[in-house]
Amino acid sequence: MGLTVQKFGGTSVRDAELIHRAARRAIRAASSGNHVVVVVSAMGDTTDRLVDLAYQITDRPNRREMDQLLATGEQVSIALTAMAIQHLGHDAISLTGGQIGLRTDDFHGRARIREIVELGRVLRRLEEGKIVIVAGFQGVDPDFNVTTLGRGGSDTTAVALAAALKASVCEVYTDVDGVYTADPRIVAEARKLESICYDEMLELASLGAQVMHSRSIELGKNYDVRIHVRSSLTDSEGTYIVKETADMQQVVVRGAALRKNLARVVLEGVPDAPGAAAQVFGAVAARGILVDDIVQVVTAPDAPPTINFTIDSSDVAEMRGMADQIVAEMGVRHVRIDEDVAKVSVVGVGMRAHSGVASRLFQALRDADVNIENISTSEIVISCIVRRADGEKALRTAHAAFELQQPTQG
Amino acid sequence: MGLTVQKFGGTSVRDAELIHRAARRAIRAASSGNHVVVVVSAMGDTTDRLVDLAYQITDRPNRREMDQLLATGEQVSIALTAMAIQHLGHDAISLTGGQIGLRTDDFHGRARIREIVELGRVLRRLEEGKIVIVAGFQGVDPDFNVTTLGRGGSDTTAVALAAALKASVCEVYTDVDGVYTADPRIVAEARKLESICYDEMLELASLGAQVMHSRSIELGKNYDVRIHVRSSLTDSEGTYIVKETADMQQVVVRGAALRKNLARVVLEGVPDAPGAAAQVFGAVAARGILVDDIVQVVTAPDAPPTINFTIDSSDVAEMRGMADQIVAEMGVRHVRIDEDVAKVSVVGVGMRAHSGVASRLFQALRDADVNIENISTSEIVISCIVRRADGEKALRTAHAAFELQQPTQG
Repeated sequence: MGLTVQKFGGTSVRDAELIHRAARRAIRAASSGNHVVVVVSAMGDTTDRLVDLAYQITDRPNRREMDQLLATGEQVSIALTAMAIQHLGHDAISLTGGQIGLRTDDFHGRARIREIVELGRVLRRLEEGKIVIVAGFQGVDPDFNVTTLGRGGSDTTAVALAAALKASVCEVYTDVDGVYTADPRIVAEARKLESICYDEMLELASLGAQVMHSRSIELGKNYDVRIHVRSSLTDSEGTYIVKETADMQQVVVRGAALRKNLARVVLEGVPDAPGAAAQVFGAVAARGILVDDIVQVVTAPDAPPTINFTIDSSDVAEMRGMADQIVAEMGVRHVRIDEDVAKVSVVGVGMRAHSGVASRLFQALRDADVNIENISTSEIVISCIVRRADGEKALRTAHAAFELQQPTQG
Repeated sequence: MGLTVQKFGGTSVRDAELIHRAARRAIRAASSGNHVVVVVSAMGDTTDRLVDLAYQITDRPNRREMDQLLATGEQVSIALTAMAIQHLGHDAISLTGGQIGLRTDDFHGRARIREIVELGRVLRRLEEGKIVIVAGFQGVDPDFNVTTLGRGGSDTTAVALAAALKASVCEVYTDVDGVYTADPRIVAEARKLESICYDEMLELASLGAQVMHSRSIELGKNYDVRIHVRSSLTDSEGTYIVKETADMQQVVVRGAALRKNLARVVLEGVPDAPGAAAQVFGAVAARGILVDDIVQVVTAPDAPPTINFTIDSSDVAEMRGMADQIVAEMGVRHVRIDEDVAKVSVVGVGMRAHSGVASRLFQALRDADVNIENISTSEIVISCIVRRADGEKALRTAHAAFELQQPTQG
């Protein structure tokens, strides 16, 4: 008998009607001969409401108590989902993170899963013919304190359970119907992918694809869990996230992505001394600013180098606030912030085996009159910094250059 | 070092301000050199809201899942109470019923406590200088399913913890300031009692005193827990519920009570055959109607007896619905329901050692022109059924007859 894990996010269990819809889907999977484990998040804006409550009490809520508080959101969802399945005539039982023994470290608010020690409790209920509903996002540390897993935590619970139970698939129900070759709101020709490799999905997630959180994809990769991202509103197939796709050898570029809300920071005249750059980046990191696409340029022999990097637009104010400090304390000649940039990237594990990908992208962008301001590459990603105004054109150009609209590309 | 258990009901933790008030009270007790364990209920109408949610999903919610759902209410309260205590600068930690190992049977919705198996977790936190906040009303069965204790469940949790931890006192904070000799809204002279015996409190609770639920008083009696019922809004002393009061030998009657919403059912001409009455009461019980004050009267030799009993006014419609059945199937000649009655009672363990209490009550009522329609007595209670219109006068008369307004009565 196969085993399916189904995960429903907060928007998919927002109200009684949607909970009934999720219940029907779980029953359908059970009726076609599978054991079914359902993982649910807190309903709609429940977590926000609980956080509000905490801030009515104190402006600095204790992290352990915050987890004790937030975990109730998923506990409400599992009880209601079990009731809905029972209402529709199928046996069901809900279990909290503590009840399945989902052990984590004690890093409250963003705990990491260590093991699931009461899996027998899940298996026994499945053998009894029940659909088992498990609370996502939560666990317990070795002393039975309640912990939460942080952003994307319910996805992580679902993938971890699928791994532990050796599920044939982990279905992630969401408000999009799969992973696309590019954002279809920008690229009309964008095509829903039948499948994508873990590594590609990880890169797309870091480039802003909201489909799943990186941690759950990593876990899927480590335990080889077949993840199926699909719509909670339709029955059509979504996208499988897997180790190897059938067309892996042929596909050089799987998808393209655009990050629009970037700013480029230019440090002109960085002292050419050991540790100068490290000092700057240390100070930036201390303010909680995430930095990417670092490029060092030497404009003339003996001239002090220029260092460029990108930051998220939301960090620009913080960055401006420390510009004077960087000049005064670290001997940088000038700090310039260019808020008008975007980054277009192409991603594909096929790049490992194919050359000429970068030049094909640069050529296409040049033909489209898009100026490339910076380039960064990794094993399976090529990124170009462009003017923000050119961003969407650059994405469409990259998408067309690699014929991503075609089910089988060159 | 002494140990105090403080219990705050739902109305005492209804909002952030009241939670802060409860937190201050816990800190004050800790500051005067006690270990403090706080038991809290769900905030205000939380439980009602959760029940509503369940009924949006199904008209017949599963009892186990209902407990899983309802237990979240107290979990929210404990987390917020811990945060409030921490905000005020004192160390604190919250623990659920499951975390303290409060084991119950598996009777969902009205489970009974069996033992508390993780008391070490409470003691260790107390030794660390923390105020420990425990979720009332909830436990886990031997298979770690969440259970709830039913009406008055948080009081039961508090008293059970006080017993297990050998607390010097279990303080129950509520919206009244103690136990009175009679309802002060009816009897202006009613006096707040300094102390009352468990048995007396049990009888008053069954006569409608809302202060504490019977089960928690029974538990207090069995484990000799000193219970202090007091106001959450003031600092004045309330009433101690204890095994023996100092004035126990002198006090014959401790308090008087009135149940206004009663109806009397008169079964005329019950067949004088073995089992006839049992058949009637069996059918009544099967409808969930609680019966009290049963009196059998034989009006003439050889005539079939008349049986009177009282029921709650809320059960009158149900009772009327089965009157025809009782006549047709059980051979009772006639069923009459008198909706216009009330019951006045006096309670005191001193009655065990004193005679003449009943006659003193009857005399006083006669002098006040209150007609007594029925009398029932137990070891420490004397009750009279009277016309409902006479109820309040009867209560005032009884109160005066035993000089309950005087701190030391005859």
